[in-house]
Amino acid sequence: MCLDRIRNKDLLDRVCSPKEAAMLIKDGMNVATSGFTPSGYPKAVPMALADLVKETGENIKINLYTGASVGEELDGILAKNNLLNKRLPYQTNESLRNSTNNGNCEYLDMHLSHVPHYTKLGFLGKINVAIIEAVAITEEGHIIPSTSVGTSPTYIQMADKIIVEINTSQPLELEGMADIYMPKKPPFTRAIPIMMPNDRIGTYSIPCEIDKIAAIVVTDIKDNVRPLAPIDPISEKISHNLIEFLEKEVESGRLTNELLPLQSGVGSVANAVLAGLNNSSFRNLVCYTEVIQDSMLDLLDSGKVLFASGTSITPSSEGLERFKENIKYYKEKIILRPQEISNHPEIIRRLGIIALNTAIEVDIYGNVNSTHIMGSKMMNGIGGSGDFTRNAYLSIFTTPSVAKNGAISSVVPMVSHHDHTEHDVMVIITEQGVADLRGLSPKERAKCIIENCSHPDFRPLLRDYYNHALKNKSKHTPHTLDKALSWHTRFINTNTMHVD
Amino acid sequence: MCLDRIRNKDLLDRVCSPKEAAMLIKDGMNVATSGFTPSGYPKAVPMALADLVKETGENIKINLYTGASVGEELDGILAKNNLLNKRLPYQTNESLRNSTNNGNCEYLDMHLSHVPHYTKLGFLGKINVAIIEAVAITEEGHIIPSTSVGTSPTYIQMADKIIVEINTSQPLELEGMADIYMPKKPPFTRAIPIMMPNDRIGTYSIPCEIDKIAAIVVTDIKDNVRPLAPIDPISEKISHNLIEFLEKEVESGRLTNELLPLQSGVGSVANAVLAGLNNSSFRNLVCYTEVIQDSMLDLLDSGKVLFASGTSITPSSEGLERFKENIKYYKEKIILRPQEISNHPEIIRRLGIIALNTAIEVDIYGNVNSTHIMGSKMMNGIGGSGDFTRNAYLSIFTTPSVAKNGAISSVVPMVSHHDHTEHDVMVIITEQGVADLRGLSPKERAKCIIENCSHPDFRPLLRDYYNHALKNKSKHTPHTLDKALSWHTRFINTNTMHVD
Repeated sequence: MCLDRIRNKDLLDRVCSPKEAAMLIKDGMNVATSGFTPSGYPKAVPMALADLVKETGENIKINLYTGASVGEELDGILAKNNLLNKRLPYQTNESLRNSTNNGNCEYLDMHLSHVPHYTKLGFLGKINVAIIEAVAITEEGHIIPSTSVGTSPTYIQMADKIIVEINTSQPLELEGMADIYMPKKPPFTRAIPIMMPNDRIGTYSIPCEIDKIAAIVVTDIKDNVRPLAPIDPISEKISHNLIEFLEKEVESGRLTNELLPLQSGVGSVANAVLAGLNNSSFRNLVCYTEVIQDSMLDLLDSGKVLFASGTSITPSSEGLERFKENIKYYKEKIILRPQEISNHPEIIRRLGIIALNTAIEVDIYGNVNSTHIMGSKMMNGIGGSGDFTRNAYLSIFTTPSVAKNGAISSVVPMVSHHDHTEHDVMVIITEQGVADLRGLSPKERAKCIIENCSHPDFRPLLRDYYNHALKNKSKHTPHTLDKALSWHTRFINTNTMHVD
Repeated sequence: MCLDRIRNKDLLDRVCSPKEAAMLIKDGMNVATSGFTPSGYPKAVPMALADLVKETGENIKINLYTGASVGEELDGILAKNNLLNKRLPYQTNESLRNSTNNGNCEYLDMHLSHVPHYTKLGFLGKINVAIIEAVAITEEGHIIPSTSVGTSPTYIQMADKIIVEINTSQPLELEGMADIYMPKKPPFTRAIPIMMPNDRIGTYSIPCEIDKIAAIVVTDIKDNVRPLAPIDPISEKISHNLIEFLEKEVESGRLTNELLPLQSGVGSVANAVLAGLNNSSFRNLVCYTEVIQDSMLDLLDSGKVLFASGTSITPSSEGLERFKENIKYYKEKIILRPQEISNHPEIIRRLGIIALNTAIEVDIYGNVNSTHIMGSKMMNGIGGSGDFTRNAYLSIFTTPSVAKNGAISSVVPMVSHHDHTEHDVMVIITEQGVADLRGLSPKERAKCIIENCSHPDFRPLLRDYYNHALKNKSKHTPHTLDKALSWHTRFINTNTMHVD
């Protein structure tokens, strides 16, 4: 059985059922898994754990650490069965989101580059068990990751015990796509030798002490990838505005039409942006990003993008077929790195990344909220947007100017939660236009954002807020604090930010 | 005259009066200067500019870019005479602060590592004139900086014209203390080869195209260094709490008692912290920081600190004498780097810096305000605190738990301005105690900060706010938005955050 996937014969007697593996997980444990937005995460063992708890009635609550978002078979099942005490660092699952917002699950929203770093430094406690999806285990016991690398290398290094889920639905040809490099802890850290996005600096497989592999489960459950919505006209207009902005940077001589390496967040606006690039005049592009989705495969196919570095590949089921058929081609064009490296400040600053991320709301002074609805409700998390924004060559945020059919303005007097501060946000783009904030003072930014990015329905109200605040005594960042969050409280009370 | 300081004879005919040099500065220009917190800044030319404008009645407004804060002879004189249109990136001068807050001068508060980076990338416009204080100009026309390096290397590289202020009050023996290294722009950037805080990677002098030197002024006006207040009992208690926290990290095995390289902000609390280290059990310490003040000289003298890397040296007048007397000793122990390197994310992350910075206020979820009083009034600026915090091994913020004789709580429901977000702040320390936020969810952080850091006079009010917010529907980051900033509005209206 699976000798091409379990290549060390001594390991064969550790193959067991998902249920037997799940029995290694005890109440109060820190359980770390593979998986990144949502691909390459373990499925059989968490489902078996939920079944086991239902069967035995045992009271089990674990702290679940992943790479980023994972699918229903992990986050969904565990949240629905109330098995999660704490979860980090990013999620997109509805059941988990509900669990977080109703107070059942503590959720820690971290920069993705911090996760492996903090784990290694011991800041997140001991990793009792790691559950890692793999396409194979090598003769030496090293683990070949499936569609995501994420934090798996560090979790494997730090865990007491490891459960490997060999997933036969994941093509064995993924072997060779990963590039595993793990910086040492300070004071022994050295320069990470990536000078170009396509530099390979590590190994195909994740080093693992063979004796720590406590259980191996074989499964063929597929990644549960969310379908992307078709591109709507608003996203298309945002993409158009972005491309026009980048064209002006080329005209000014600050960029060439090969641009610089691109990072792109996920979601429908991000998808539209990538689609827009395919029709742009830019050429020989490269990407240094987190997630490689269908739109990136399109760009690789068309030759518009020469190369893409990421930490996970998340194709749709259609995309996965295309990927499998041309896997040799894509292996030349794609590297999957640990998220410590894909999101590393050193590399992002060195390569000069153009960072494209989406905002939930922005304020008139250029602060960005990426995570919270009305200040308290967690949406997904900051993901890698902070890693990239803070160290980018250009940090760009996109958002439609209104949400909820026009009831919510995405441009507000003060954001209800701050994920990216005025110090880090260079450009804001909505379907209305572009606010280039580089070199602007707070007052200059306010005018620029209100006039270029806000929706005309809310623009007069924003001008009123700003002009009224300007009359206060302190005029560096004019605010009237008892009105600063009044748009949000109005929405909470009346379901609209409009004044009736 | 000054042949040891102006070593290229062809340059001697460019020596002129401060007034002649000042005439190179025209209305609307971007003028960039040396100077960092506040040392090594030009003095004679800005004072002459102010006199010139008084004399001619000419309408001159310039945009002034520095390294960080500079003294009265630059910021003060220009602000008082209303010659500033815009100023970046950090200041501590009262006249300039007033000018910023009454709306006369636009002020752009930037991460200090971003200043040279953005300048080089062309994001801050053209540099028309750079005014650089130097101890000497070499035979090749290269510039030997005085007590600060700051952004001078980049300003010199990018400026159309350069005015050099040779300051004979600055000892010529400073030559050899600077280490000038300038990363290339992407995509040509390579790894910065600093692996240890004391690695020298560059040159003693700043490369300069000799033809760009348009004027040389000789002066002996001394740096106008602010005296530090004596250490008060509150700062001493904060220092004690910090050292106890670090001792626990050593006990846990996460640090050795050589710690990791230390960065320390400036000010009286920072001063107390450094003084506290001198009496601690830690040994063989190294510092990788921005500003080297008297307390650092003490640590070097006692042998507690083996080595210090910074971007400026700012001794008191007493300290300056000590420094001058032992300059050969200190030159073995101190390197002054460009602020692009002293504050570079790549190096900070690699070296594993312990970052110690001060907060104006913190909130119950771990967000930090370093810059604004009551949301609108600029104090000094973010300085390097963001550069270090975001990439640190340990990011620590200190603040007394109350301000204004107890009228203001430094722990509030929501900070009135966000400079460092919940994602970046690991530890908060007041004289009351230590909140170690690593691995904690927002609700866990709230309890930890309220119970450990807030002042007992405000603790019940903070508990009330939190417990009330917990009753709202969304419980990830519990807030009641119409009350979140009410402590600040109460202070604005009644001069106290206390409820009567």
